[in-house]
Amino acid sequence: MTAPSTDNLRVDGDRLWSTLTDTARFGATAKGGLCRLALSEEDAAVRRWFVSACEAAGCSVDVDELGTLFARRPGADPALAPIAIGSHLDTQPTGGRFDGILGVLAGLEIVRVLNDAGVVTRHPIEIIDWTNEEGARFAPAMLASGVFAGAFDADYARSRTDRDGVTFAAALAAIGFAGERPAGDHPLAAHFELHIEQGPVLEDAGTQIGVVIGVQGIRWMDVAVSGLACHAGTTPMALRRDALQGAARLAAAVDAVGRSEPGVSLSTIGIFQAHPGSRNTVPETISMSIDLRHPRAEGLDRMEADVRAAAATIAAELGVEIAIIPVWSSAPVVFAPACVGAVRAAVADLGYSHQDIVSGAGHDSVYISRVAPTGMIFIPCEDGISHNEAENITPAQARAGADVLLRAVLAFDAAP
Amino acid sequence: MTAPSTDNLRVDGDRLWSTLTDTARFGATAKGGLCRLALSEEDAAVRRWFVSACEAAGCSVDVDELGTLFARRPGADPALAPIAIGSHLDTQPTGGRFDGILGVLAGLEIVRVLNDAGVVTRHPIEIIDWTNEEGARFAPAMLASGVFAGAFDADYARSRTDRDGVTFAAALAAIGFAGERPAGDHPLAAHFELHIEQGPVLEDAGTQIGVVIGVQGIRWMDVAVSGLACHAGTTPMALRRDALQGAARLAAAVDAVGRSEPGVSLSTIGIFQAHPGSRNTVPETISMSIDLRHPRAEGLDRMEADVRAAAATIAAELGVEIAIIPVWSSAPVVFAPACVGAVRAAVADLGYSHQDIVSGAGHDSVYISRVAPTGMIFIPCEDGISHNEAENITPAQARAGADVLLRAVLAFDAAP
Repeated sequence: MTAPSTDNLRVDGDRLWSTLTDTARFGATAKGGLCRLALSEEDAAVRRWFVSACEAAGCSVDVDELGTLFARRPGADPALAPIAIGSHLDTQPTGGRFDGILGVLAGLEIVRVLNDAGVVTRHPIEIIDWTNEEGARFAPAMLASGVFAGAFDADYARSRTDRDGVTFAAALAAIGFAGERPAGDHPLAAHFELHIEQGPVLEDAGTQIGVVIGVQGIRWMDVAVSGLACHAGTTPMALRRDALQGAARLAAAVDAVGRSEPGVSLSTIGIFQAHPGSRNTVPETISMSIDLRHPRAEGLDRMEADVRAAAATIAAELGVEIAIIPVWSSAPVVFAPACVGAVRAAVADLGYSHQDIVSGAGHDSVYISRVAPTGMIFIPCEDGISHNEAENITPAQARAGADVLLRAVLAFDAAP
Repeated sequence: MTAPSTDNLRVDGDRLWSTLTDTARFGATAKGGLCRLALSEEDAAVRRWFVSACEAAGCSVDVDELGTLFARRPGADPALAPIAIGSHLDTQPTGGRFDGILGVLAGLEIVRVLNDAGVVTRHPIEIIDWTNEEGARFAPAMLASGVFAGAFDADYARSRTDRDGVTFAAALAAIGFAGERPAGDHPLAAHFELHIEQGPVLEDAGTQIGVVIGVQGIRWMDVAVSGLACHAGTTPMALRRDALQGAARLAAAVDAVGRSEPGVSLSTIGIFQAHPGSRNTVPETISMSIDLRHPRAEGLDRMEADVRAAAATIAAELGVEIAIIPVWSSAPVVFAPACVGAVRAAVADLGYSHQDIVSGAGHDSVYISRVAPTGMIFIPCEDGISHNEAENITPAQARAGADVLLRAVLAFDAAP
């Protein structure tokens, strides 16, 4: 590949948009969204279309033991591992038309435009459709990419069941997409994923492209605030040990911790329930959840320490007990500098407004980053709405994202 | 009656305590409390004992159409209405030995001590056992005193059913205590009630007697705080409209309103629930209750206005909506100066430590205050606990309360 031949290479935005809208017939819902649960008939239909479209674009298509599809466009150097462009074609039960799908179909568009221009890359290019990213039919989410990266084993994945008791293995066999190739059988030179943001940050800032630098870490905790139930009419304020007031103060402290690094740290209390829940009884106990997020482990450590310090102060002030129990955590992911750099260079070349962003949601790239240099590109989505039939983007946003993806892949391919 | 003959008159504390403990056999529970539901066999048993004890003390006992017992000791002036000493002998299902019972049995002790001393009062004295004060078997509470005062009519009371579908009328007939006399057929010169505080104020202050100046008013409100549900991982703090944080701030404001007049104003949030209640979703809506209490209507007005002003400020700050809907209220009661004055004079004469107090709970005196000058006397109870088998007082506390009651009745009787 030589630089002059690709500097002005752009995707065909109209063709990409047509592909996105045409294939939205597979699992289309009345409200304009998609219901394309993993390994369903609708998923099978889009897979059959995808295989034939990739083969028509000159790719060889392979399928692994978990149904993940790998469509390969050969490269010039047979010793190099492929540069993957991966995401997923499955959706939530009332999902949108772009979550995951954009990342796979942009891969197809890139192969098509490379074909049209007669470009031969050094590395093979692999478009990947990871099976069961959503986790909506078979929990957990990101199942096939998790197996590929060694987070789960394949038998675990095959034994997952949907709500009707159908196993992943049975559903995979039923649609005819169980391959022979073991999951994770080959190295990837890199993994790039174009995705809608699924949040409001880029739209709110009026930014066209998000350069995803990593995935935030998460800590989930259960909190029990215990005081003394007493009569609302006969117990003076000064003699109360009011669990609800303790919890309300802790909620404010958790909010302050979330706001401590604007645009970086996040905190959420999603569950909050008072017991016994009687109008004229001061609550004895509050059950609440805390969700803390930060791109760096030391940030999470600091946030958790601040929450615990606030809890100790509040407990002493109000005479209540506050127990904070960790229930789950996910370590932060920092994407590979080579991939992030390729995305950053691509955006700069193309002149799109851009900003660094940390992914708040899980993606196949989170697991794949364990086994391959990984980068992601975000584009805005309307009102930040996703996992919803109203999920929407514009053709220009899709084209911009795909152009950045194309140039990032080419930049990575060209790097020494 | 002449002053010299009663200045040194005191109840017989041992006799009062024996009466309290002996009659605790009617409905005794294994844990040392009482289960003496209104119009039950246990209630019938204590009623039979009470009638015979009053008759033995020279009283004539009458019963009204709702089973309320009136035990009358004649006075010197047949033109005067009786001074009533009333409370109730029924209990909660796991109730204590003193709530209500102390007020009735102290009346009996007073009649006995007046007999022993040969004192003839100007007014008749009536000891009253009001039917179904607790409301534990037949809702609402304070049913017979409510009918006496015109708050309900007698047919309404008779039609109330317990959880087995038995009507008040049927239960009353079954125990043989349905009288002919209409409820509320005769005026009362005054109504005095000695009661345990059922809260921690007096014990906490180390005060022997509470001079009850009235009953606080209550306002109940339902609150809905509405924001926007969004993803805990992808929505920056600055772009959230977090219903939970709005509700937590409102809870703090409600607490501050409750603390605005220490020892006077009260506020409680007993119900607080987040929806949808998912750990990684910012809550869309919070449902909560507010209970405001104050002895004066203007105090309640000010508290409610402060809560509404805080809600408006919080709603604007956080971009949430806060709807506050009144659901029930009870106007404050101010007891008659003549009765409160008689209690105050009695305490001063006897030298007990005392303080003014506003009742936080409902009592028969609340209704009776609508139709007769009314006063109440509180004594401390252990740890402020009531409606519980662990409810407890000391013999000295019972005696002190009964002595104050005796002297208040005599003071009222002697007043011009």
